[in-house]
Amino acid sequence: MIPFFSRWQAALGFALLSATAPAAAQTTAKTDSINIRKIYDQALLHGESYENLRQLTGKIGGRLSGSPQAQQAVDWGKVTMEKLGLDRVYLQEVMVPHWVRGAKEKAQIKPAKGKGIDLNVCALGGSVGTNGKLRAGVVEIDTWAELEAMPAEKVKGKFVFFNRPMNPTFIETGRAYGDAGDQRRRGAIEAAKKGAVGALVRSLSLAHDDFPHTGTMAYDEKVTKVPAAALSTNGADELSHLLKADPGLTVELEMACQQLPEVKSFNVVGEIKGSKYPDEIITVGGHLDSWDLAQGAHDDGTGCVQSMEVLRLLKATGLRPERTVRAVLFMNEENGTRGGNKYAELAKAAGEKHVAAMESDGGGFTPRGFGVEGDPAVVAKVQQWSPLFVPYHSEEISVGHGGTDIGPLKGQVKALIGYECDDQRYFDIHHTAADTFDKVNRRELELGGASMASLIYLISKYGL
Amino acid sequence: MIPFFSRWQAALGFALLSATAPAAAQTTAKTDSINIRKIYDQALLHGESYENLRQLTGKIGGRLSGSPQAQQAVDWGKVTMEKLGLDRVYLQEVMVPHWVRGAKEKAQIKPAKGKGIDLNVCALGGSVGTNGKLRAGVVEIDTWAELEAMPAEKVKGKFVFFNRPMNPTFIETGRAYGDAGDQRRRGAIEAAKKGAVGALVRSLSLAHDDFPHTGTMAYDEKVTKVPAAALSTNGADELSHLLKADPGLTVELEMACQQLPEVKSFNVVGEIKGSKYPDEIITVGGHLDSWDLAQGAHDDGTGCVQSMEVLRLLKATGLRPERTVRAVLFMNEENGTRGGNKYAELAKAAGEKHVAAMESDGGGFTPRGFGVEGDPAVVAKVQQWSPLFVPYHSEEISVGHGGTDIGPLKGQVKALIGYECDDQRYFDIHHTAADTFDKVNRRELELGGASMASLIYLISKYGL
Repeated sequence: MIPFFSRWQAALGFALLSATAPAAAQTTAKTDSINIRKIYDQALLHGESYENLRQLTGKIGGRLSGSPQAQQAVDWGKVTMEKLGLDRVYLQEVMVPHWVRGAKEKAQIKPAKGKGIDLNVCALGGSVGTNGKLRAGVVEIDTWAELEAMPAEKVKGKFVFFNRPMNPTFIETGRAYGDAGDQRRRGAIEAAKKGAVGALVRSLSLAHDDFPHTGTMAYDEKVTKVPAAALSTNGADELSHLLKADPGLTVELEMACQQLPEVKSFNVVGEIKGSKYPDEIITVGGHLDSWDLAQGAHDDGTGCVQSMEVLRLLKATGLRPERTVRAVLFMNEENGTRGGNKYAELAKAAGEKHVAAMESDGGGFTPRGFGVEGDPAVVAKVQQWSPLFVPYHSEEISVGHGGTDIGPLKGQVKALIGYECDDQRYFDIHHTAADTFDKVNRRELELGGASMASLIYLISKYGL
Repeated sequence: MIPFFSRWQAALGFALLSATAPAAAQTTAKTDSINIRKIYDQALLHGESYENLRQLTGKIGGRLSGSPQAQQAVDWGKVTMEKLGLDRVYLQEVMVPHWVRGAKEKAQIKPAKGKGIDLNVCALGGSVGTNGKLRAGVVEIDTWAELEAMPAEKVKGKFVFFNRPMNPTFIETGRAYGDAGDQRRRGAIEAAKKGAVGALVRSLSLAHDDFPHTGTMAYDEKVTKVPAAALSTNGADELSHLLKADPGLTVELEMACQQLPEVKSFNVVGEIKGSKYPDEIITVGGHLDSWDLAQGAHDDGTGCVQSMEVLRLLKATGLRPERTVRAVLFMNEENGTRGGNKYAELAKAAGEKHVAAMESDGGGFTPRGFGVEGDPAVVAKVQQWSPLFVPYHSEEISVGHGGTDIGPLKGQVKALIGYECDDQRYFDIHHTAADTFDKVNRRELELGGASMASLIYLISKYGL
């Protein structure tokens, strides 16, 4: 059993605010409160985001830039938006990288004595292949200083094994991800500088399990490109354990991944024209591409269907926005941000006036609020609306980070807004084969779309 | 990808509070802030609640009052607490009801024409059996007024089918549960008053799936006891749909459940004596019994392991409480509250001085805060500590409901405190075969235990 009548009185927060405000402001606040309630009711009673996500993840699945599935996702996004009866649905052409994994990767620990031990690995996105089997010794590295201090002859011809775990004491898992992510991003470069033949990187996860986590990595054109693979956290623990007893062990890695020529692709854009200020634009988006290992459900199918749902909610509630609202399904967030760059470039070229841009790319979990990047006065204006979100437990509005795809709009827009939700489970499944539709809860997804639509509604009414 | 540096600046809230307080208060607040950080670090780095839950759910599983598994859970709880090196671990004897489900329930819709259609059903807890197969027509009821207005001859000899869904527009799912729960609790009584032979009740769930949800129901000794079963939400939708086309259809139900004689059982209590005020007692608990259909993971294995973890965290951080802290694993919350009643009765008889009681029985999901039941001054005192929880996103402290097991302490204690966490997923699995260990996320569970321990630490230091 659970409490029956728990926290709903939190809504009183808003009443208290209103009580001290002038009568006209009270009426406006009341209208906003009622309209936001309409948005949530519409989302919870008639939401379409969950069924849209089922289609995107189930019928198309993983959709890495340049893949046939990415193109199917573009077609699907366009058709799905067209059904919403918007003022305009269109594509923005953009060239994207085309990296392919090839056959499933294989790896084995080869101890000095005894049988090989299979390791769960996957290529990091963008890695070169191994050109057959690549077998070498292993040096484990926990800090960059360790690698720097190490004589080149100890590294030469070996794999560098980056095994610094995500820090579980960070309450926000995104911070832990950022903190440990340098190993994945720079590992292959720094390893190769010391003469290593490859990089093995502990997966960016706080869970202890067998899923390797892919994700983008970088090369430096001045440094030899060596293959880079992620090990599952269990695999990394095992390799580390075995290395202590048997420093001479080797690892054999086989990866067939490669970079193919660039491919033409698209952002998908849907638009409701503003009734009063059609030239002032508010963008809301997620990314349509996903890693290839699973279905790209939380990353970022949820952001896509929520962004489309924002438009549907505004239409279905009759809350026609005073400013233009655009949902954008960005292409190529995962390994290039070409779609985000193209969107900002076209906006600039057309001399568009952008008010705000919002991104949902942290999973489709229960909403917490928003992180706002902008001038202090703009942040303060958004924060003033926080009491309206108290009844929905979505009132955390803080100085924060917008997102990768809307980032290129910086300087052209007053606020970059990141939709923020509970992130405790996100990195357990992020970039793995486990990022599937069944991990998404319908209500959590719908509440997120409603909270995004509510803030978009307020910005469209009051500007920033 | 996701934002790297999102909301941690929320911690500033606490700094702002401190800035306006006198120097001594600032120092105290700083000490508390540091100690709470210690508690969280200990939980996230060395937490034992998750492994304890794995044992309870995996080795013992479902543990309805009176069952051999409930006794195993008592033994396990005692041994597990004894390992914590507490000042005292003991059992409180209590007689509990012993209801058994018997063979798996069966039900079929028998249309006027064509084959029978299987229905996913389970007996409601406490129901009488059907004594073989029970076949009868069905009248669907959505409101109590409908049933009241219906002539007895339309109901006589039939099943009353209570099909009012949980209301998805309530943001807190617990409210929706409370709102629709009267059908499960009173359905069999009201149906029998009109001459019905049984009650079929739509499962209390916001999900659309095939799991029937059990849960306790009541009889009135003056009214004939008729069997009561829960239908899965999909099953209820199907029955409702078929009834519209074929009002003469029948349902055949077979349930072998029965009430056996009462059984001796126990609450399990572990205690750390207060260093300054050993006679002032703070209780923290969950319930050890669970429904029999699954493992009782979120309901309420998580509350049990979190309550034990509170004691472990206080010991491991060296934060010896100034008041006595007791973890209680209550027996028989689900169908009798005998353990909760016994605990309050013994406390009263012994003339114990109780300061506060906290209960975790809403699942082991990401913490949100606490609901406090008590005099306004007491609630305000707890709310003063809210800024300390901001860095952990657990600062929602509102007027609320304590919980079923601590409820009987009302009048003997200053505050009844309900631990509150994200509840969007809870009722999807509540009282079903899906309430299993794999639905619990380690970090979410650990964050909950840490937030409970932090509030207990503050109460143990400052009193209420």
